[in-house]
Amino acid sequence: MEIPVVRNVLEANEKMAAHVRRQLAGRGILTLNLISSPGAGKTSLLERTLKDLAREFKMAVIEGDLQTDNDARRVASTGAQAVQINTDGGCHLDSNMVLTALDSLDLDGLDILFIENVGNLVCPVEFDCGEDAKVALLSVAEGDDKPEKYPLLFNLARALVLNKTDLLPYVDFDMARARAFASRLNRDIDIFELSCRNGQGLEAWYDWLRHMHAAKRAA
Amino acid sequence: MEIPVVRNVLEANEKMAAHVRRQLAGRGILTLNLISSPGAGKTSLLERTLKDLAREFKMAVIEGDLQTDNDARRVASTGAQAVQINTDGGCHLDSNMVLTALDSLDLDGLDILFIENVGNLVCPVEFDCGEDAKVALLSVAEGDDKPEKYPLLFNLARALVLNKTDLLPYVDFDMARARAFASRLNRDIDIFELSCRNGQGLEAWYDWLRHMHAAKRAA
Repeated sequence: MEIPVVRNVLEANEKMAAHVRRQLAGRGILTLNLISSPGAGKTSLLERTLKDLAREFKMAVIEGDLQTDNDARRVASTGAQAVQINTDGGCHLDSNMVLTALDSLDLDGLDILFIENVGNLVCPVEFDCGEDAKVALLSVAEGDDKPEKYPLLFNLARALVLNKTDLLPYVDFDMARARAFASRLNRDIDIFELSCRNGQGLEAWYDWLRHMHAAKRAA
Repeated sequence: MEIPVVRNVLEANEKMAAHVRRQLAGRGILTLNLISSPGAGKTSLLERTLKDLAREFKMAVIEGDLQTDNDARRVASTGAQAVQINTDGGCHLDSNMVLTALDSLDLDGLDILFIENVGNLVCPVEFDCGEDAKVALLSVAEGDDKPEKYPLLFNLARALVLNKTDLLPYVDFDMARARAFASRLNRDIDIFELSCRNGQGLEAWYDWLRHMHAAKRAA
């Protein structure tokens, strides 16, 4: 009984995701779906990125949370457009929520749209939101075994941000082990070690955004 | 269409949870369901607890993970009984999985059964596993806003463990703010600040387990 229902939900989501994708592709907007556990630093990464690349790109954010508009207010304070989706307890965003959120955004001239998913390493992975790529985040405080234990995200993500490297001296995190697990799951994954707190490593992430944006515009 | 199906799933789960609860209550076994994000330290807390209280209590662990038996091997190395449930991608444990796992455990003389749920701050909260109490864990590296942003768990948990306090000097975590959010959601929640790494604060957690176990036996 249960499996056909879940399948229908996923199928319906994929149809709507294709619709979102066409709409954004027609405008050449690079769309990235950020997925991680709560507290890995998605909002912090967006705050830094929106500030540091403000002159280069016009960017907007769709914020997904169970409740509160804290994160939308945090990213809006950088001057970027932000729209909050409250899932009211729901454990992930879906393409229909993103489609609705697009109505609240001015898409004219937009270069990059970030979708910050609900903090959850499991459920958001299966729901295509119409993005060009998923970006996985992992804080080094969470442990180097997480790619092995939660493989689907790392399997599907185009990039992996290993955040909070400023904490490396104080935690047991084997960077080589985490990278090896992730690369075994996904040979093509681009991995960035960075700290949103001290700024180290952000430039490589910004270069990746520039590269992805140029590729999108050339497509 | 979707809501009735979810309701049926939850109802079926609750019936089975009541069955599990009766079975464990008949033996006076204190059963605790540990819920947190990936990497908050559930397995580390169990490793410490199983070692430090080994002479006092007979304890067992049901380990829930999407994949791998890493965590069951970690807790089994303390000498405690452990059984691994792999959900094969499923985002939470349910009472039927716990019932099945009980078949693999020797319940004779057992004092405390820990259920380590899948790392996820959202979905496991709604699925009663037949436990006496839910225990929420939050690492200080995850941020003090998490009780406000993921309220259901903190609303329902009997205890909150604020783990990795050894990292407090290196992160922006306002302990008073986190405690205030949690207490506003749940006046009766018992809060423990501790570090599984340096051992500080563990004694208060152990006292809570002693108290809960005695209350269970007296019931």
